Amino acid sequence: MGRWEPNARGRLAEAALELYGERGYEQTTVAEIAKRAGLTERTFFRHYADKREVLFDGSVALQELFVKAVTEAPESAAPIDAIAAGLEAVSKVFVGRREHSRQRQAVIVANAELQERELIKLASMSAGLADALRRRGVAEPAASLTAEAGLAVFKVGFELWIAASEEREMAQVMRESLDELKAVTASG
Amino acid sequence: MGRWEPNARGRLAEAALELYGERGYEQTTVAEIAKRAGLTERTFFRHYADKREVLFDGSVALQELFVKAVTEAPESAAPIDAIAAGLEAVSKVFVGRREHSRQRQAVIVANAELQERELIKLASMSAGLADALRRRGVAEPAASLTAEAGLAVFKVGFELWIAASEEREMAQVMRESLDELKAVTASG
Repeated sequence: MGRWEPNARGRLAEAALELYGERGYEQTTVAEIAKRAGLTERTFFRHYADKREVLFDGSVALQELFVKAVTEAPESAAPIDAIAAGLEAVSKVFVGRREHSRQRQAVIVANAELQERELIKLASMSAGLADALRRRGVAEPAASLTAEAGLAVFKVGFELWIAASEEREMAQVMRESLDELKAVTASG
Repeated sequence: MGRWEPNARGRLAEAALELYGERGYEQTTVAEIAKRAGLTERTFFRHYADKREVLFDGSVALQELFVKAVTEAPESAAPIDAIAAGLEAVSKVFVGRREHSRQRQAVIVANAELQERELIKLASMSAGLADALRRRGVAEPAASLTAEAGLAVFKVGFELWIAASEEREMAQVMRESLDELKAVTASG
């Protein structure tokens, strides 16, 4: 086999998720992931630093996309509408990836260390969103509160979207979750 | 000295926070904490499992208090008002503890492992609040979204309350933060 394997990165990620689901994350080795993907360990380490990185590979790109959409929302948009634009943008990334997302979530939920990593990722996303809002001229504490509200919608909307019986696209679930958040905070 | 030391628990916690601030959390030993408090290591371990527990000692009680207040809010209260009652209840615990809270926060922020632990604590609190709201008959996703909104207010309000120049009591900061959250979500 040549040095460059077609879609090695994607094949390794798919093989890893399968094995984490079948045997558990802790019990799976990089050698097994490479073998399942029909690739070498060396190829694995050309793409990922370790078996944990396979799961968090897209996190940085996702945060950047979310922040970029908030930053580029029309100047006239209210902070919560800039966040809504960000939710629309990230939802597009998940089109066609519901089953993958379900598998990934099941692996994360089963492992305390991975859950910690996920919480840190989400906290970093919230900080990034608050920063983007401040750069739009939103004062504190409005910027942090709006960012946290956006992240609440993302977290709860994501859980709804990966539920067994759910068939709506993520963008729609996020819009409805944001509407619901507005409703519950307005009802007091 | 006798087996029972007056306020050993509080003296150990105070000594620990001082040392974590002076030398760093990682560099501080249980022996040093005990010595600073004028107590023995044995006494330390009668009160705390390890040096980390000193920092997270009150977390479970705080969550229970928050959940209890949400549970016991008037039946007619809207979900967000039940959360507001919870915020009032937890704020009482922090009266007179601003300097202690500032010191604790500085230690947590300086250490990745402690930050992870803090995020897990907050996620657990959110899950506990959502559960309390469901037991009040609030449907999903409203229960989870309201719980996340409440936690957003708690997190952001806490940061405001420990800021250097802040003099308002926590209960007031929390009320104003909740009002601000309502304003930012209503503005879209």
